[in-house]
Amino acid sequence: MAVKVYGKPQAVCPQRVMHCLVEKGVPFEFVLVDIDAMEQKRPEYMEKHPFGQVPFIADGDFELFESRAIVRYFAAKYADRGPNLLGRTAEERAKVEQWLDVEAISYSPCAFTIVFNLFLLPIRGLPGNKGEAVAAMEKLDKVLEVYEKQLSRTKYLAGDEFTLADLTHIPVTRYIVEHCGLAYLLDDKPHAKAWWEDVSRRPAWKKVMSFVASGASFYSP
Amino acid sequence: MAVKVYGKPQAVCPQRVMHCLVEKGVPFEFVLVDIDAMEQKRPEYMEKHPFGQVPFIADGDFELFESRAIVRYFAAKYADRGPNLLGRTAEERAKVEQWLDVEAISYSPCAFTIVFNLFLLPIRGLPGNKGEAVAAMEKLDKVLEVYEKQLSRTKYLAGDEFTLADLTHIPVTRYIVEHCGLAYLLDDKPHAKAWWEDVSRRPAWKKVMSFVASGASFYSP
Repeated sequence: MAVKVYGKPQAVCPQRVMHCLVEKGVPFEFVLVDIDAMEQKRPEYMEKHPFGQVPFIADGDFELFESRAIVRYFAAKYADRGPNLLGRTAEERAKVEQWLDVEAISYSPCAFTIVFNLFLLPIRGLPGNKGEAVAAMEKLDKVLEVYEKQLSRTKYLAGDEFTLADLTHIPVTRYIVEHCGLAYLLDDKPHAKAWWEDVSRRPAWKKVMSFVASGASFYSP
Repeated sequence: MAVKVYGKPQAVCPQRVMHCLVEKGVPFEFVLVDIDAMEQKRPEYMEKHPFGQVPFIADGDFELFESRAIVRYFAAKYADRGPNLLGRTAEERAKVEQWLDVEAISYSPCAFTIVFNLFLLPIRGLPGNKGEAVAAMEKLDKVLEVYEKQLSRTKYLAGDEFTLADLTHIPVTRYIVEHCGLAYLLDDKPHAKAWWEDVSRRPAWKKVMSFVASGASFYSP
């Protein structure tokens, strides 16, 4: 039975999960949960995801929420298939975990605030809070300065191989760069800019973007 | 060479790391970084931790920051010693990761806002923002309602064994309960209350509290 991914295909966190599955060559069924219609708060969905968020996955009888836990699970389950995404030693895995935590705790909260106020509210005809967005941009720029320094030492965040530490950044960064007009944040950070150009051109990520645009329900490699 | 833990012993995130080491019976040296004197922003420290935060650890030549990455690293390195903290199968580990992410993303940001405004600012003679604290308390209460439901099904968050998913909650929850007067948030949640009474009485956690109170620099089991 194919893995089922529940969510909205345009949403950042389900895209993170799809990207991991495509990197690993794992087929999946995408089940729409229309978050614009608040379907994620319906009782039958909240039985599966008690916080009423997306994504949620079912791998046979095994169910899981939280996108970063999901990508860790699939990266470990399919460790021998596709690119290594978790590191090969305890120390390599620890560095992957370190940057995964930086992404979850320092990078994405700023990035989400920006996308929410400069893209998601405006496309619904609602005014975004520009002050909040600017404060978040200043914080994000400081985080990117740390990334610039790290990426001057290693090709990817956790070392010289692409891992989950990079993968988890891609969906929200695409919104920042392509829909919020903030590509310029990378202009004074040549290593971070080269990293973004590299990771955003990965074939697996391009397949995710094509899948999302197609409106299809089934992905197979 | 003993593990070195850098931080302030009273701070939540270094306590999380100490607790993991004590559960595993691993000796460590605690190196004070006086965050009240902003020592974590000094250039020599920021060479080690580019975000200028605590904790930071050195295990021989291996260096790491982000407390949750650190506890995952030690729990994996000492998997065969002390309690199992990461789960035994891929599925068990995934559930641990799921609740670790809930703690990092949904629980602790609310809990930190409360502790900052109701405890850390007032003990420095500064007024806390009560509106912010109340908003965070309302959010935390919703998170605890989900925990109550989960803990009515399993003894601990990720299953019937104590894991990192529980451990990471303990330091900040102690501040909430003991220093912010919010023990009552658990009064209408019998399973969450029993869980807190259980995890906060763990011998390893009590040893951490004694170590912090002692002002000692070296811990050995």
